[in-house]
Amino acid sequence: MVRRAASDDEGRRPTTIRDVAAHAGVSVATVSRILSGTYPSAPATRGKVMKAVRELDYVANANARGLAGASSRSVAIIVNSVISPHYAHVAQGVQTQAALEGKLCIIGTTGGDPERELATVQLMRQEHAECVILVGNVVADEAYRERMGEYARALAAAGSQLVLCGRPALGPDVPALVVEYDNTGGAYAITSHLLSAGHRRILFLGRRDGYTTPDARIAGYRAALADHRVPHDPDLELEGTMERHEGYRMIRERLAAGARDFTAVFAGNDLLAAGARQALREHGLRVPDEVSMAGFDDLPTAADIDLTTVHVPHEELGRTAVRLALERRQDRSGMNAHVMLGTHIIVRDSVRPLRGPSR
Amino acid sequence: MVRRAASDDEGRRPTTIRDVAAHAGVSVATVSRILSGTYPSAPATRGKVMKAVRELDYVANANARGLAGASSRSVAIIVNSVISPHYAHVAQGVQTQAALEGKLCIIGTTGGDPERELATVQLMRQEHAECVILVGNVVADEAYRERMGEYARALAAAGSQLVLCGRPALGPDVPALVVEYDNTGGAYAITSHLLSAGHRRILFLGRRDGYTTPDARIAGYRAALADHRVPHDPDLELEGTMERHEGYRMIRERLAAGARDFTAVFAGNDLLAAGARQALREHGLRVPDEVSMAGFDDLPTAADIDLTTVHVPHEELGRTAVRLALERRQDRSGMNAHVMLGTHIIVRDSVRPLRGPSR
Repeated sequence: MVRRAASDDEGRRPTTIRDVAAHAGVSVATVSRILSGTYPSAPATRGKVMKAVRELDYVANANARGLAGASSRSVAIIVNSVISPHYAHVAQGVQTQAALEGKLCIIGTTGGDPERELATVQLMRQEHAECVILVGNVVADEAYRERMGEYARALAAAGSQLVLCGRPALGPDVPALVVEYDNTGGAYAITSHLLSAGHRRILFLGRRDGYTTPDARIAGYRAALADHRVPHDPDLELEGTMERHEGYRMIRERLAAGARDFTAVFAGNDLLAAGARQALREHGLRVPDEVSMAGFDDLPTAADIDLTTVHVPHEELGRTAVRLALERRQDRSGMNAHVMLGTHIIVRDSVRPLRGPSR
Repeated sequence: MVRRAASDDEGRRPTTIRDVAAHAGVSVATVSRILSGTYPSAPATRGKVMKAVRELDYVANANARGLAGASSRSVAIIVNSVISPHYAHVAQGVQTQAALEGKLCIIGTTGGDPERELATVQLMRQEHAECVILVGNVVADEAYRERMGEYARALAAAGSQLVLCGRPALGPDVPALVVEYDNTGGAYAITSHLLSAGHRRILFLGRRDGYTTPDARIAGYRAALADHRVPHDPDLELEGTMERHEGYRMIRERLAAGARDFTAVFAGNDLLAAGARQALREHGLRVPDEVSMAGFDDLPTAADIDLTTVHVPHEELGRTAVRLALERRQDRSGMNAHVMLGTHIIVRDSVRPLRGPSR
């Protein structure tokens, strides 16, 4: 393995991969394969090599790391949090494709803090990640675009590649790949599905002005209302973040406020739907008998609660991000390619035709 | 940011953090803070520093990285997969504690492949992670213990620290911290809960001999049966992995085989319970009216399906792992401390008292 790089500056001749091979009595190629960890090897052989590495306190320096493939053996994905199943499934796609390409997958988490994001991008660059994939919902303001531009240029200069996943493009002059999915189209389709069942008073859960994902979804909701000639009522758009407990809170507050002035709920994602469903149930309102409900994402939760929702190709987003980035490293053209993946409705058992006129 | 370390070997004087500070017209401390990413900084200042870093193509070499805090700014967690909510919630705890300690959190995924695990541990060591946390279910055979011993010694030699999370201890001579939770006690308690409701024919889902987590859970199930004088029937222990679709498969196959010879199901985790519940529903059997069910983990899915389950302190496992590891770095004593966190039942609405004698 490696001694702290700092000790390279203390004048000792660094141990080379050849020393390790000689000490272990195996070939340099074998040591390289075992250290790169991308090929199977006999436990006994690995044991000998690891013993030599430990006894010589081997430094995988830049050259040895090159031999060992370490300087080009990982892809990186950076997300706010991994307990969001949306992010986790994209990360799973990245891991799957990375494994197919013989790469490791490392994930950085930021908790949504730009300073931590910056530090994490640097860490991934120091690790020579072949690509750095940034995922998800953001406020796409000037500071954001400037920051992403810096990342894109800095990574490109290091022979790496920035990929924005589920985020808007930055413009033709920025060397970033973009892999998006159709938020607005999916929201339009599922809102139309509720409207076609006769619903007119449809709550939208998770409005958050300025954030790219909820903005794109509420745009689809509004467009569908307009095309069905249903007047837009801002009072039906409930604000909050995209977490389960927020869906619970929004419905609790709405029902506590008095009369039930809606017949259907379009939750901005499946987690909001799960929380909202629980609040409705505690209020004696069953889905779909008393209230129809639709979600967004098609995460496992949606299957558990029989939720009609919009399928987002999470794993395909991650796989596509890795595949595009590694292709671009072969062929430096089209460094700012832009891919949009489709979304579609999954019909389960959470929507009923409205009987009688809605209020 | 950093130039590829390889170019250090080309004889150029590496740019220092002082050059960057001078070029940006700020203090070294400011550059250090901004590069370490662990303190807030004004966007304008960060912009100036990032511009200087880019224009000088700054190499954060070992010393500069020391100044920048990079050589001790991350904690690492390695899991099979991040779409398993069990792993994701432990990782979330690691991220939370890392943020409190001003560290970054990086996650490596292995897909359960020992070669990828080895390569990922190395990558984390090369990145000078302060600790490397390995999580979850394994086959604790000789090869495993040998491999973990190698990791523990190699990481300790690099000033890092191996932490095993939800895995058995390796013995007093191995410098690894262990943070476990009580699988057997939780399984004993929830099985007793089903027995106290009058159930005698209780299916166990997820038997997988040799794997530490299912072995520990089925041990609790068997101990509770024995203490309640209920004869052990191996035919009630259904084999499979811990994924949702496996729970669906096990129940489907059991019901297809003919007579329903059970009144309750103890699923080895909540995902198995969710899949099993769907298979029961498709067969016209409702939970809890016709079949009682209990799970394990207390993941969000359990709340969605009103499942009585065993609470596992996932985030506390992650937080404790980081806290212990960073404390041990101050005080090198007790390098192989062993912590066991408790588990307890969460009662929801999936268990009913059995009416009449069980068949």
